[in-house]
Amino acid sequence: MPDDTFSLILFSGTDDKLHAGAVMAVGAAAMGRPVNIFLQYWALDAFRDDRVHKDHGVAPEAGDDGARAVIDQQATTHWIELFEQAKDIGEVTINACAESMELLGITPEDLHPAVDGVWGVARFFMEAGDGATFI
Amino acid sequence: MPDDTFSLILFSGTDDKLHAGAVMAVGAAAMGRPVNIFLQYWALDAFRDDRVHKDHGVAPEAGDDGARAVIDQQATTHWIELFEQAKDIGEVTINACAESMELLGITPEDLHPAVDGVWGVARFFMEAGDGATFI
Amino acid sequence: MPDDTFSLILFSGTDDKLHAGAVMAVGAAAMGRPVNIFLQYWALDAFRDDRVHKDHGVAPEAGDDGARAVIDQQATTHWIELFEQAKDIGEVTINACAESMELLGITPEDLHPAVDGVWGVARFFMEAGDGATFI
Repeated sequence: MPDDTFSLILFSGTDDKLHAGAVMAVGAAAMGRPVNIFLQYWALDAFRDDRVHKDHGVAPEAGDDGARAVIDQQATTHWIELFEQAKDIGEVTINACAESMELLGITPEDLHPAVDGVWGVARFFMEAGDGATFI
Repeated sequence: MPDDTFSLILFSGTDDKLHAGAVMAVGAAAMGRPVNIFLQYWALDAFRDDRVHKDHGVAPEAGDDGARAVIDQQATTHWIELFEQAKDIGEVTINACAESMELLGITPEDLHPAVDGVWGVARFFMEAGDGATFI
Repeated sequence: MPDDTFSLILFSGTDDKLHAGAVMAVGAAAMGRPVNIFLQYWALDAFRDDRVHKDHGVAPEAGDDGARAVIDQQATTHWIELFEQAKDIGEVTINACAESMELLGITPEDLHPAVDGVWGVARFFMEAGDGATFI
């Protein structure tokens, strides 16, 4: 259990939070920290290979201006590209939560190639450092 | 302040996030880590003894299919049962935030028996490890 | 990188989450921990000097009673006052995320005086402890 691992649980499936999570993954990887990403629920759903590039909406408080800004942001650099960049520059792994896979009827073949594998939650905690950031 | 305590602040009151939090509590407890859960706002409201089993909805991005999947999930194993399992297998405490109790007009007698007590936020930080996961 | 720094990423822009974040900042500062706050997306938008005191809504699951309770809460002690209190009692810094500033077209002059500066995400991770709490 490396002390400085940045553990990131992605739960939310909106483009604003996925982008925020991706920026954090890049930032932590750039600082030389291992990054341990775990996909649950609606974030996992967004990592289906055929859904990555659809419009996933934003938090309700964004308003129309905020929603448009995020759509433009995704058109420039999509969050999936940022996760791929993070994997290129550092020790970054992305694993799907086994329970959420079953919940949503998703099989490993459905997932984007950036996803490395499927983990149970106990395995995630084995690899996590002290804290886990939940988005 | 034990270094490996998993500190979990439950804020959101939807069934998907409460279930995700419960799974994490079980996972951390199964790994032998003390788990320190703090209930605020809408999560606290969901722990009222007479509201635990009502439908608390899901995140807006779930869609109809996602919402149905979570309803089925709760019918199989409700999140309150998972929190109770976590308490059975490990050193897991659940405390209500004193300020949220006052905000929502909740008294200790209103709460589900799985809740151990009422804490101020300073007490929570005394018992928390380095990080706190906020859901 | 001080071990006991409490790192708090504020992403959500609703009054309930901003208040919860402010209470945590006060609690951590009262326990003598340095607090490192990073403003992104809709939380950053809420820290515009001319928007701090507007109604930012609450999480959808709050319901009408919950929403009213939060409005009353803000009228008594607004979250911006709590962040200012946290800065008075401890070593608390609040920085805006450079990428979110650009996304939303915000300049430093637009921000409330409680915001100390603008940071890139790598800088945030340099100053963060092991975990980061995301709200």
